Formats: sequence, C-alpha cells, structure tokens
Amino acid sequence: MNHILDTIDTPDALKNLSLGELKKLAQELRGFIIQNVAKTGGHLAPSLGVVDLTVALYKVFNCPSDKIVWDVGHQAYAHKILTGRRDAFHTLRQSGGITGFPNRSESKYDSFGVGHSSTSISAALGMAIARDLDHKKNHVITVIGDGALTGGEAFEALNHAGDLGKDLIVILNDNEMSIDRNVGAMSEYLSKMRTAPKYNKAKKDLEGLLRRIPAIGDTVLKTAEHIKDSVRFFLVPGGLFEEMGFTYVGPIDGNNMEILLEVLEQAKKMHGPILIHTLTKKGKGYLPAEIEPDKFHGIGKFDIASGEPNKAATNIPSYTSVFSKALIELAQTNEDIVAITAAMPSGTGLKKFGEFYPTRLFDVGIAEQHAITLAAGLASQGKKPVVVLYSTFAQRAYDQILHDVCLQNLPVVLGLDRAGLVGEDGPTHHGVFDYSYLRHMPNLTIMAPKDENELRQMLGTAIAMEGPVVLRYPRGCGLGVPIEADFSGIPIGKAEQIRSGGKIAFVGIGSMVDVCVKASDLLRADGVESTVINARFVKPLDHILLQQLARQMDVIVTVEDNVLAGGFGSAILELLNEDQLNDVKVLRCGLPDHFIEQGSRNELLEKYNLTGETIAAMVRNFIQ
Amino acid sequence: MNHILDTIDTPDALKNLSLGELKKLAQELRGFIIQNVAKTGGHLAPSLGVVDLTVALYKVFNCPSDKIVWDVGHQAYAHKILTGRRDAFHTLRQSGGITGFPNRSESKYDSFGVGHSSTSISAALGMAIARDLDHKKNHVITVIGDGALTGGEAFEALNHAGDLGKDLIVILNDNEMSIDRNVGAMSEYLSKMRTAPKYNKAKKDLEGLLRRIPAIGDTVLKTAEHIKDSVRFFLVPGGLFEEMGFTYVGPIDGNNMEILLEVLEQAKKMHGPILIHTLTKKGKGYLPAEIEPDKFHGIGKFDIASGEPNKAATNIPSYTSVFSKALIELAQTNEDIVAITAAMPSGTGLKKFGEFYPTRLFDVGIAEQHAITLAAGLASQGKKPVVVLYSTFAQRAYDQILHDVCLQNLPVVLGLDRAGLVGEDGPTHHGVFDYSYLRHMPNLTIMAPKDENELRQMLGTAIAMEGPVVLRYPRGCGLGVPIEADFSGIPIGKAEQIRSGGKIAFVGIGSMVDVCVKASDLLRADGVESTVINARFVKPLDHILLQQLARQMDVIVTVEDNVLAGGFGSAILELLNEDQLNDVKVLRCGLPDHFIEQGSRNELLEKYNLTGETIAAMVRNFIQ
Repeated sequence: MNHILDTIDTPDALKNLSLGELKKLAQELRGFIIQNVAKTGGHLAPSLGVVDLTVALYKVFNCPSDKIVWDVGHQAYAHKILTGRRDAFHTLRQSGGITGFPNRSESKYDSFGVGHSSTSISAALGMAIARDLDHKKNHVITVIGDGALTGGEAFEALNHAGDLGKDLIVILNDNEMSIDRNVGAMSEYLSKMRTAPKYNKAKKDLEGLLRRIPAIGDTVLKTAEHIKDSVRFFLVPGGLFEEMGFTYVGPIDGNNMEILLEVLEQAKKMHGPILIHTLTKKGKGYLPAEIEPDKFHGIGKFDIASGEPNKAATNIPSYTSVFSKALIELAQTNEDIVAITAAMPSGTGLKKFGEFYPTRLFDVGIAEQHAITLAAGLASQGKKPVVVLYSTFAQRAYDQILHDVCLQNLPVVLGLDRAGLVGEDGPTHHGVFDYSYLRHMPNLTIMAPKDENELRQMLGTAIAMEGPVVLRYPRGCGLGVPIEADFSGIPIGKAEQIRSGGKIAFVGIGSMVDVCVKASDLLRADGVESTVINARFVKPLDHILLQQLARQMDVIVTVEDNVLAGGFGSAILELLNEDQLNDVKVLRCGLPDHFIEQGSRNELLEKYNLTGETIAAMVRNFIQ
Repeated sequence: MNHILDTIDTPDALKNLSLGELKKLAQELRGFIIQNVAKTGGHLAPSLGVVDLTVALYKVFNCPSDKIVWDVGHQAYAHKILTGRRDAFHTLRQSGGITGFPNRSESKYDSFGVGHSSTSISAALGMAIARDLDHKKNHVITVIGDGALTGGEAFEALNHAGDLGKDLIVILNDNEMSIDRNVGAMSEYLSKMRTAPKYNKAKKDLEGLLRRIPAIGDTVLKTAEHIKDSVRFFLVPGGLFEEMGFTYVGPIDGNNMEILLEVLEQAKKMHGPILIHTLTKKGKGYLPAEIEPDKFHGIGKFDIASGEPNKAATNIPSYTSVFSKALIELAQTNEDIVAITAAMPSGTGLKKFGEFYPTRLFDVGIAEQHAITLAAGLASQGKKPVVVLYSTFAQRAYDQILHDVCLQNLPVVLGLDRAGLVGEDGPTHHGVFDYSYLRHMPNLTIMAPKDENELRQMLGTAIAMEGPVVLRYPRGCGLGVPIEADFSGIPIGKAEQIRSGGKIAFVGIGSMVDVCVKASDLLRADGVESTVINARFVKPLDHILLQQLARQMDVIVTVEDNVLAGGFGSAILELLNEDQLNDVKVLRCGLPDHFIEQGSRNELLEKYNLTGETIAAMVRNFIQ
C-alpha cells in the first residue's frame, strides 16, 4: 500500500490532498511518530495530540513565508516530519541527529527556536510587527498549550498583542494538562469553556429575548442598547481573551480535520489578534499514551505493544527519588516544611510528597517567578519552603532568587534537579549555567552532592539552615552507594578530603567528584599519586583547605559540569587571587563558551573531556 | 495648631481618630511628604496618590499582625511615616537613613522587601498560605499599581491565588499610569471599568428585565436559569478578575476616605481572594505633581513653590540623552532599527525616538521578559531591535536573553542604562550584577564605554553587528568630552591603550576607566609610572593585549563597578589562567559579596574603594 507520507517532502505537497487524504496522512503520521519515538525516546504524547492541527495548518497556510511558532516545541514532531525531516526523523534527539525542538539552524520552517515555555506569543508578535513594518502580507501563527499559558511571559505578550491589534493567530492547544495536570484559575476558566455549548445557547437565547421584548417599554430598548457590548463580549465563551483584545474562536475539536480546516480558513481572512481555542487529546492515536499522557509526555525508548519503557532494570535509585524520600521524612518531624513545584510534581518527585502532605504541596503551574516569590512569602512567616525546579527552568527566576530570597536572606531551599548535562533534550535543557548565575548572589549557600547519600544529607543540612540554600543535583541514577538513614549534618563550607598525597589535587563538585576519583585512579596506575577533594560547596568555598592545597600542591585541577565562565573553577581562581596564592597552577575542567548540543550524557561527557580518562589525559599533558 | 501626625508613633494611634481627623491626618501627611521629599528627593507622585488609602488601611486593619505588602514600594512613604519612622523621614534615601522602599530589616511593619515590580501578590499569597497552615486569623493585603499588573509574575500569582481561594485582599491602585503612561490590553480593560456606572446600570437593568419577563414563556425561564451565572460574572465590571477566581469590588474613589473605610471594612468580612479596584490620582495634593506625575514619579530635590528641580545647571549631557540622540540619528539611515522599552520611555530616553519614529517604538509595559523575546522575534525577521532596560530590571529577563537571543545568535542590541551604582535607590536598584550574569552567555558581546562619546560610537558599532550585544552605561552625566558627529566603528574585542609605561597596568571598564586615569595620575605624582587600559569589552576580552600585559607588567589592576564574583576581573583571571600566565600579580577592584546599601554615588564609590584616591592607595599598599 502506498503511503501518502512518503510523498511529502515539503508542506507544499499537502496543498492538493483531499480531505480524506489529509485524514489518512494524519493517521500515517501518528504511526510514524510512534514507531520512531519508541526507538529514540522523545515527547510522544504532546506531539500525537497536534498531528491533525499540524496537517491542517500546512494545508491552509503557506510556509515558510507564513510563520508558525511552536511554544515549548515538544509538540512539533509532525511539523518536523512534514517539513523535510521525515527521512532523518529516526535520528531524533541523538548525537548529530535532528533536534527535539524547533531550531532555526536546522530548517527554514523552524521560524523560532524554543524549549522553555510561554515565549511563542512574544516571538510571533515580533514577527507580525516586522511584517507590517515591511509591508508584507504573510500570516503569523503560534501554537501554545494551556499549560504554557500559565507562564507570565505569555500573559505579558497577550496584553501587548491585544493592545497593538496586529494580525496574529494564536492557537490555544488545550489538552487540559501541561505535563502533569494543569493548575490555576486559567485552567479552571478553560474547563468552563469546554462546556461552552451552554454558554452559546445562553447567548442565542438572550439575543432572541432582546429582539422580542422591545414591546415592554422604552427602558428595555435603552437597556438593550446599554448591554449590547456586554452581551457581545461577555456571553461568548472566551470573554477573558476578548477582554484582552483578542477575537475568540472556539472551543473547537482540535482532532477533527474538517472543523480545523474550516476554522483556519476563516481565521486566515480575519484581522487583528485571534485566539482559536482547540481541544485536543494528548497522546491521541496511541492508547497507552491516551491513558497515561503524563508518563508519555517525555519518555525514553519503549515497547509499542505494551507501552512499557525499555529500560535496563536498576536497583539504584534516582537522585530525584532520594530527594523526594528524604523530604517526606524530614517533613514528618518538621511541620514548617512546604514544597513548591512549577508544573512538575512527577518530574521533581514532589507528587509523592503531596500524597503524604496534601495541604503542604503547591503546584503553581509553569510559573517559576511566582514559585520563588511565593516561597519567600512563606519563609517570611516562618515556613521552610522547598522549591524544586529543573536547573534550566530556574533561569526564569533569576531576579526573584536574587531579590526576594537572597536580599532578604530568607531561608528558602531551592532544589535544582536535572543540573549539568541532561542529554538528549539539548541546549535549552542542559543545566550548565547555574553555578555562574548563582554564585555571585550574596547570602546564598550553594551545595552539590557527590552521590545520592550526600544529597540526602545535604537536604537535611539545607532544611536546618537559616538562610537561602541551593542544592544542585544531576539527572538520573545515583552511584549505588549505601544510604544512611540518619541525617548527619554536613558542616557548611567544609569540603571533604577523599584521597591524600602527591602534588596534584583534584577538586571536584557534585557528580564530577566521582570522575575525579577515576582520574586519580588512572594517574595512580601510572605511578602518580594525587589528592581528591569533594568540594561540596560552591559557596562558601572551603577557604582553609584551598589555602593549604595552594601551598602544598603543584597543580589544582578543578572539575565541574558547568560552563567555565564564572563557574566553580572561576570561584577558586578568585579565592586564590584574593590571597595572592600564585605559585600553584590551576587547570580548570568544565564546559566551553558555547551552547552544548544534544547527545547522550556519556557522549557529551566524553566530548567535553569530563570523564576520568579524558581528565587524566589532560592532567598528564598539563604536567609535562 | 496641633498636628495629629505628631501624635502618631504607631498605626494603633489611628484607631481612635474620627473620620474628620483621619482626613486631616491625610492632609498633614501630604504636606509632610512634600516638605521632606523636596529636600531628599524620592518617589513623590506615587506616594501622594495613596495617602488616603494608607490611612484607611491602618484605621481598618491591625498591623503588624495583619500583613500589608506594597508592590514595588515606591508608594510606601505614608506607610513609613505612620509606622514609627516620622522623625527619621528626613533621612530618606540618604546614606545611613531610612530606605526608599519597604525593607524587612528596617521595620516589623515592612512585611516584605520590594523594589522590582509585580511581586506583591506572590509574596502575599505565601503569607496567606502560611497563616492558614498555622491556623492564624490575620488578614493579608497587597497594594499593587495598574502598571505592576502588566508584569507576568503578577498574572502568575493571580492565577494561583484565584485557584487556591485563600482569604487575600488585593488592592489595585489604579492611577492610569505606571511611570509613564500605561500600555497594553490590561490598561484598556481598566479604563473601560473606570466608566463602570454604565456597566452597573446595564446589570441592574438586565436583572430587572429578567425578573419581569417570565410571563413570556418557558423558554425565557430556562434562559434566565442558563444565563444566571453569565450575568453574575459578566455584567459586573471586573469580569476578567472574576474569571480568575477573585471577587471584584469597585471601581471606587481611592482618594475618598469615607468610601475607602466602608469598602475596607466590608472586605475584612469577606472570604476568598478579593480585588478592590481603587482609582487614585498620582501626585494628589501637590499641583505640579498632579499635572506632571511622570516628572514627579521619582525626582531629586526640588523647589516646592515652583515645582522645579534644584539641580545645578550643567551643559554636560547624560549618558541616556547621548544614547537616545545617537539612536535617533542611526535610525534615520537604518530603517530596520526599532526600539523597545518596558514602561520607561522617559527614563531610557526612547520617548524622543518615538517622537521621530512613532511606528518604530514599542512600549511593552513592565514586561522585561516579553520585551526581550519580542526583540528576538523582530530580529528573526531582519529587524534591528534595540531594547533599553535599566540594568537591574534586565535581571527579570535572564532566561530570555540566554535562550531567545544568545542561543539563536540573533542581532538584538540590549542597552543597559543605570548600570553600576545608582545611589539613593539602594540595593534593589544598583546594576552591579550584570557582568556576572551576562558574561557566561555564549555568543554575547558585552561592551561598556569610558565616556559619553564612546557610548555613541559603541551604539553605532553595536547596530552594525550581526550577533547579540549588550551595551552597559551608567546613570547620570557623562564626562563632558567632545562628541564626534561621525560614527567611527570600534573594533570588536579590542581594548584602548590610554597611557603606557611602568610595571603597573590599570585595566578599567566603563566609567571606571576615568577612575583608573586618576589613580594613575596620583601614582605618577609619587613617581610611579603606570599603564592605563580602557578594556571597552568584557566579552570578548582583548586576548593579545592582556597576554602582553601579563608578560610585561608586575601588576594588573582591574577596576569595575560590578560585584567581583564572576565579574570583569574574574574574566581576566580566567583568561590568564587559560594561558597559564601566572607571573603577573592581579589586584581586582570592585564590589564585595554583599548587597550594596543606599547612599550618594560618590559616597558609595568612596566607601567601596572605587575612586582614584582609594585605588591609588590600594595599589601603593599592594606593591609594598
């Protein structure tokens, strides 16, 4: 049987397809995505939900002259396949392969690079302004999820777009969840609209009513006049968006090709900012993903028949689960502990915390800024808030961490999960800037554990502290070390000496300590002894120990999975400079000054010289 | 005549005042604020607008057990005066005096420290959650301006607060402007509500109508049932807030004491999140400020009678005005240039740009995140966007600068005005972290001019560049140097050698270059020659020149008005470390690892050893 998909090399090829063929194409796309993502892993459920919408968009609009901006971008697989990347799709998210998100350098159809949520309306508005300044006629369309709409930047952009009145089509892809179930008033508002027929009926009834009653008297006529605007604005669903200056269309079935084509054709002819509210089913077309869209939001390789992940079984717990378990235990005796997540209760392990302490977990939506200031508000009243964000998403809250937490010296614990290299999600998701954007913040303590047991101990320590703390830990499994039940406090600002001797000292931080031990082993095999330090703290540094090392050692090797610029090694250079300890040579290992591409974590560690072998080789080279 | 104000040492003293006395107190407060701010400078107009509201709040609520959070905080002068700081008020914003914003370490009545916009609802919600967890009964109130409501974080917090349903009173202080005139759909929405009587009338009429028409038939009864919710929600003004889960009250006259007292007493008894929409007059009670609230938003010392600033006349242009003028000139020949401000058209000098090119200036409201992504969207379509933010406010857009601009390597020019020490506004307003939070961003060029002519030349250079550029410059006047009409390009990454000789090299950046020259002069007077370098670029550094200096000099002295941690000097240490140039000693001058308090710029430069004299002294000390 011939596949239509095989004939689609550019979106232009959709133009001549019939409705039936478009539906068949959507069906084929689903199968193709499922087959491929089962082998590569990826954002399956969101991409399946918008297959029909994507096909309809390319039937109706002319890309790349019309611009489509995909918010977050994890729903853009059908888009990638239809825009010339079908044959490369099996390389998705792999080293050297096509990327998991739209990327301007990958395709002219990727009009804007994304990865973090809630930026699409801003970017699209910029494109619409540019179009009008250049007297061009193209359409600008953004596809944004209901979850992304809870991010403040999306609101800032709606506010501006509604005011400017430029032609702009915002397609709200409403699947009732972001990654976990959606939260917030916006979410409730949208659910209300999902039952829109009631409103539509009311509106029609009222309009009929108003037409029929002028006979009652003059007052009514005047009333009708007065409330005309109100009726028009308020009795359609989407009044909130109408208030923001958008024409609201919907809600419509976002998995129904006929309706999509009709509405998009309509929208194409309309002017000003338009919001099309589509209801889609996350995971649509793959039953396991429809049933558990959360599990299939972003998933590794899996077995298609069973829907089960193809993971090698391991008994080693993940850092996330160790953190979660420790927090639950600590919260048992410390009633002031409350936990905050920004739309990631599962990913951060806080969902379990919420099962134990339902009144003490707060999911604020994709709203990292609010998450941090909320925590500061809680801390100002004696609570001990623990906010857990992925390192890369905490970037959104830089100002709030600095002002609301550090300036006020409030005891907020910020857990940074997925720090360092995260692998396949690539440059927008690596957490490799955090040491650099955090360590200049006054009053802040920054720690990173060498293994999962130390994570547990550090969390206990952080909870006991009276000022702001960041606790940074990597994605994935721990090292398999024994986990101590007791919470034995870790002395603030004290490093741990793991190995002594020689004239070379490795000073590692976080997951790089283990790499230092391996490098030291390899040097030992060459007959070169070395010292290994687990720094534990990026701030404050262990001043006394570092002074000693500077006096005793020939070389200090700093190792971090963070950019070198402004990072951990840079902090050590500053400390040695302050003390004018110039005799020791320092070799800094870490990430270079460019964005780090996708690839497996191991591939990337290898490439960027952050394995025991590569570091040992660098040191050998350095001391010659 | 006895002043009531003289008897108010704590807010409790308001409890027994009559309505007449409260009004008189408000009158006295206005006079007191005007008298004092005329001598100290400060945020006059916003503080005058909320005097009545402040008095009413302290009459109705019991602080400090009830919590009031003042958004931004520049409207909190009456609050400060009524809460025990009357006698210290003449020290406002001066070194060692009381601070210009609420500050937890200054008073138990300052429930939350502020300075940047749009945080108050988040903080207050945290306090409300803490209260409920602790089974306490106090009220939590936030006062937020209509401008601050355009900031995304405020929306994130409304969204969460509306969902949680906790008792929380949000007072919207709507004066129709933030600092300059307000923009955006929210602003339009609020103006619509300002004409609310129409809506109220329509609502009443419709309700009457619905009561009168059941006779018409069954359909109508059903209709009435159907639209009951709609009517209740949609025909009151404030439907947008009601949709978010808030009970909307207003709009009310926020300068009318009777109404304020009545509404606040009512609100005290209500449950769930409440939004009280008050209309106030910015500058109320001081005619010059009522007429020009923009000019009196934040003002230096002024003459009360004339309303004219007591500024020493100077012919030296400010950095802001040089930037503005240069941009206007450049935009004449380069039609791709567009300018973006976040609610600061006057402060950034872009207002003038808008007078020349009204279709090419975009004021996005207090929405720095959106400002940056909007610029990236524009740049993606070949435009040359110039975003001008105050350095401290750019902190809000860290993630957007990193991802939307730098990762995509888009040619956005980001002007950072008010960088370095800003003086009296204190820790929330100093722009002393920017080198540290920017210089680890790949693809970014960062430059800072030594004087106003170099600013002009650098802007010309930045506009001509094909990647992202930050141009950082200080508050206030230039050095009075001649300004070249031509735009002679500045070579990227090349420093300027200002003075040669000796074994000490000063390497200054931005406004610190002039300080280096002075220090060099002082050493020369001692018979010690030195080299002076204007670094011009924080990124990329002038690698070749720095290598030469490292080989030729005994000492390199780096000077920056930024924190030392991760800053300019730190970048130089990294460069020397990469090349293993260990022989030269480096002395880094800059700001220490704590938040910098308020004080005049000169006082602070002196205190933190950033004057020619103090640096010369440090160097003398260092070389001994």
